[in-house]
Amino acid sequence: MAADGGLDLLDDAALLTPPPGRQLVLTADAIVEGVHFLPGDPPDTVGRKLLRVNLSDLAAMAAAPLAYLLTVSAPRSTEDEWFAAFAAGLAQDQALFGVGLLGGDTTSTPGPLSLTATCIGHVAPGRALRRAGAAAGDEVWVTGTIGDGALGLRALQGHVPDPDGWLAGRYRLPQPRLGLALHGVASAGMDVSDGLLQDLGHLCRLAGLGARIEAPLVPLSQAAAAAGPDWLGTCLTGGDDYELLLAVPPGRSSALQAVAAAAGVQVTRIGAFVPGRGVAVLDAAGGLVPLDRPGWSHF
Amino acid sequence: MAADGGLDLLDDAALLTPPPGRQLVLTADAIVEGVHFLPGDPPDTVGRKLLRVNLSDLAAMAAAPLAYLLTVSAPRSTEDEWFAAFAAGLAQDQALFGVGLLGGDTTSTPGPLSLTATCIGHVAPGRALRRAGAAAGDEVWVTGTIGDGALGLRALQGHVPDPDGWLAGRYRLPQPRLGLALHGVASAGMDVSDGLLQDLGHLCRLAGLGARIEAPLVPLSQAAAAAGPDWLGTCLTGGDDYELLLAVPPGRSSALQAVAAAAGVQVTRIGAFVPGRGVAVLDAAGGLVPLDRPGWSHF
Repeated sequence: MAADGGLDLLDDAALLTPPPGRQLVLTADAIVEGVHFLPGDPPDTVGRKLLRVNLSDLAAMAAAPLAYLLTVSAPRSTEDEWFAAFAAGLAQDQALFGVGLLGGDTTSTPGPLSLTATCIGHVAPGRALRRAGAAAGDEVWVTGTIGDGALGLRALQGHVPDPDGWLAGRYRLPQPRLGLALHGVASAGMDVSDGLLQDLGHLCRLAGLGARIEAPLVPLSQAAAAAGPDWLGTCLTGGDDYELLLAVPPGRSSALQAVAAAAGVQVTRIGAFVPGRGVAVLDAAGGLVPLDRPGWSHF
Repeated sequence: MAADGGLDLLDDAALLTPPPGRQLVLTADAIVEGVHFLPGDPPDTVGRKLLRVNLSDLAAMAAAPLAYLLTVSAPRSTEDEWFAAFAAGLAQDQALFGVGLLGGDTTSTPGPLSLTATCIGHVAPGRALRRAGAAAGDEVWVTGTIGDGALGLRALQGHVPDPDGWLAGRYRLPQPRLGLALHGVASAGMDVSDGLLQDLGHLCRLAGLGARIEAPLVPLSQAAAAAGPDWLGTCLTGGDDYELLLAVPPGRSSALQAVAAAAGVQVTRIGAFVPGRGVAVLDAAGGLVPLDRPGWSHF
């Protein structure tokens, strides 16, 4: 599964022998200090979050991770200690997720620290999970808990209590939901990076459908629930969840639960795709939950 | 040769079916406004240079290009016209070099415009050209002309005359030397991005050898020659050439010339690898040419 080839990062480019008979899955993401992470974030979590955000895109395609490339544009004032901790964090996640660093580039910048990763995974031909494909009547499922990332940012900004650091931890170290055998189980899916409702809107538009979410079903962590009902809107529209959002035909929900249990991942049904357009959020009484905004753009 | 899969850039990641029986070659580069390109550079050339710098890394491995991913971190003030011209430049080079855009990311930044590309190529297994492998007695060859990129930057800064814009053009639009069948011809190689002498030093160190360059043999463009002998040091130590630097066994030099002629690329022998350490530059009389510095770091 490991790459055969960073060539010790000595050459102009890296060699990779693709796993025979597999399709490759490729994704690239950029993160910028002050936009996607906070200037005071621990450097080990910065690298790990960058990698995990990319791995989450592979998870969203039901792909297995293989390797990645990294570019770092850092101010000249960046200290050696920062780079050492950054690299140590990456090494930790490389081992955890079984991905090798193939290569990349380091440059200076007069601006804020800017990082990109390009992540390469693989999948059996035709078995990648796609965003298009939900059908009316399919259930809406999510992995894990929703809203922790957005609340974690607010906690780090001092707006939400976070006594045990759970929310900040979820913001800084999202958990890519790799290893779920979703082919033949989910009809469509993506990862929640821009907010549950906005991302569900993407699945709806591609399917020519609407969706109905039951707010009381949306899984919240203890810490998110403790923040209180005033923060529900933030949980539903905030970003940085990196949980999977799945369309699952009703007859496949037990298959999904079995797949998730095998991977040790919690999954929760939160609503359904319906004819029409748009995403409606219903409260316990069946009334519409009013929401300020459909999505977010980090901070 | 085209990728089967940006999925219209609708999904979390792109699918790519690797060419059967080939190794993939992957490289990533970052460029930052004010570091790697000038704030006033035409936006179409910014995108094309980014792509070409990456393609040059594939050329250095004797790989054929396949596809790329792109990330753009742009200030919020960046105008639509800039993006349109940037994209038009990329489209032009995608067609020219036969590469497809697989995906990527666009973010905002409070800093300067920062761009990365990850480029994917392919090569027959075991046939990638490597930096290590030069032997004592191998000749040092280069493609094209040396120094134009460095002088082009100086021309844009007003330090070097450039009446017909050749030098500026070479700085802004390097020519990746793709399509040379170098397997079995060159024993080692890389592209000249950090300056001829510094990069030759890399090949020497990996081979445990030194090299001797004959300055009068180094191919200069008419424009670079017209700049006069005071600029020779800049040509030899400047960067941004993106020409190939090759180690070629003496018995393979005619094969190299045939390969280069088939691709319409000029190649020139400029010296040889020798036992010892370091890179010596000799003038026409066989004396050592004094040089201020071994390499450069853009501007």
